[in-house]
Amino acid sequence: MDATTVGSLGEFGTISRITAGLPHAPAVSVGPGDDAAVFLVNGSSVTSVDVLVEGVHFRRDWVPAEMLGRRAVAVASADIEAMGAHQGAVLVGLTVPADIPVAWIDDLARGIRLECEAAGAALVGGDLTRGRDVVISVTVMGETRGAPPVLRSGAQAGDVVAFRGRLGWSAAGLAVLSRGFRSPRALVEAYQLPHVPYGAGAEAQLAGATAMIDVSDGLLADLGHIADASQVAIDLDSGRFEIPDPLHAVASATGADPLRFILTGGEDHALAATFPLGKVPPEWRVIGVVADGEPTVLVDGEPYGATPGWDHFRH
Amino acid sequence: MDATTVGSLGEFGTISRITAGLPHAPAVSVGPGDDAAVFLVNGSSVTSVDVLVEGVHFRRDWVPAEMLGRRAVAVASADIEAMGAHQGAVLVGLTVPADIPVAWIDDLARGIRLECEAAGAALVGGDLTRGRDVVISVTVMGETRGAPPVLRSGAQAGDVVAFRGRLGWSAAGLAVLSRGFRSPRALVEAYQLPHVPYGAGAEAQLAGATAMIDVSDGLLADLGHIADASQVAIDLDSGRFEIPDPLHAVASATGADPLRFILTGGEDHALAATFPLGKVPPEWRVIGVVADGEPTVLVDGEPYGATPGWDHFRH
Repeated sequence: MDATTVGSLGEFGTISRITAGLPHAPAVSVGPGDDAAVFLVNGSSVTSVDVLVEGVHFRRDWVPAEMLGRRAVAVASADIEAMGAHQGAVLVGLTVPADIPVAWIDDLARGIRLECEAAGAALVGGDLTRGRDVVISVTVMGETRGAPPVLRSGAQAGDVVAFRGRLGWSAAGLAVLSRGFRSPRALVEAYQLPHVPYGAGAEAQLAGATAMIDVSDGLLADLGHIADASQVAIDLDSGRFEIPDPLHAVASATGADPLRFILTGGEDHALAATFPLGKVPPEWRVIGVVADGEPTVLVDGEPYGATPGWDHFRH
Repeated sequence: MDATTVGSLGEFGTISRITAGLPHAPAVSVGPGDDAAVFLVNGSSVTSVDVLVEGVHFRRDWVPAEMLGRRAVAVASADIEAMGAHQGAVLVGLTVPADIPVAWIDDLARGIRLECEAAGAALVGGDLTRGRDVVISVTVMGETRGAPPVLRSGAQAGDVVAFRGRLGWSAAGLAVLSRGFRSPRALVEAYQLPHVPYGAGAEAQLAGATAMIDVSDGLLADLGHIADASQVAIDLDSGRFEIPDPLHAVASATGADPLRFILTGGEDHALAATFPLGKVPPEWRVIGVVADGEPTVLVDGEPYGATPGWDHFRH
């Protein structure tokens, strides 16, 4: 009889399914299966962990397992991009209920591996445990390859602010799902899976970015972290944003301002950075300027009248 | 009014409490507060993740928060020891209910920092999220400093088997707590907090250990992993084990065989290793031999008649 749940397959059987036939990565000398993974790091190690919790960050009926696996890796990898670093290795701490179908785990593992491939990272290890809710903890380890990382604290008066990636799509997708709809499909998919602009972080570093962050909490909130860390004021020009068609559609259907999705919606994991004037790479869109002054983020010279972002314990 | 729960203090306020005044580590160029941590790695990176789940690995009423913080770091750090590597940096992914008291988080954070200090690792980052149960995911990154790691697969016929650390204490402590008792106190404390023999992994590597593992699932189960990976038979000599007094006490009170705690009890995170004859460091206790043959672990030449270890989905 086929084992159909993780509980019947057991811990070690499930791990074997996840790790079977992992592609070989040259920098990895010890992959899954020993006490720890061993791999070469080029320059300094750049490391971040992100945890996704069922019922808080996702609902299993709203995100297919493969998308969830991809998303878990994507949100952690975005932090490596935001340092201007290169992707390296991924570890996954996975907690699941015993009655979860093995097919669900297979899909999740496929998603994890696909996103690792997209990011250019090697899946090197993890831990599998039982729990009431699905909790996915992804640690990504990147490398600087000798270049200085781009911090939040380097923005300077006279710099311009630019972003690359999508803004507001995930929040609009969530608004769609929350109202019981499944379209526009592009937005629902954007909510299920952020499109991290892999390689754009290192590109920005090379171009001379002075500060950078990935947009996880919302553009205003995350630029606020740059403003605080750099002790600068940031002023965005609302006319510089292009409103994508699907955002227009959802906004008019729900009576919302589409710019609000763009300025306050999180979880798209675009990259936002500051550059010296004239140094912005071609695919980045300039949306504002950095000035001296109290740390703040303004839109068209005024405070934006909205909750600026997401606090996991306050919403 | 004082904020008394994580929910009222919020995500960023809570993170600030955890990271305030972290000691400076020379290898760490970017600590908590940016998108990712940046630190120098000496040699290759050796990395492992371990997840502790409330209701599965611990009960909040059985383990004080400070002990829990220490334990979470200890179990992950033990994997770095088991590779014969040196401790480096720690990241913590923490999921807690919104109604958890801030004082509990303070205690947990103190424990995390104390154990990092004991291990010789720097706390460099983490993630804080909300969830129904407490889930603590600890990623530890060690470094080889140029020496080859000790794998599970290197044991050879003619080697001896030895361990360093405690065996059976945690399992006996759990047996005590499960029966509603709080003593012997040494065992309850051993259950709450494993004593990882920090430095013993690198010591074994230097002495020439051929294979090594940390005892998380139980000695027989974990030596079984070495036997499988190395394709060797391991034979333990029951007369070589010393039964500590508290284990005698619990065994006679519960009618159990104290050797059973030692051979099958997990979570003490002792180190078990194989060495060429004559190469065992002084503080390690020799308990058996490695021989050619089908991969198996015997006790006094016979299979040990008991469930060999712990599978999180089967118990």
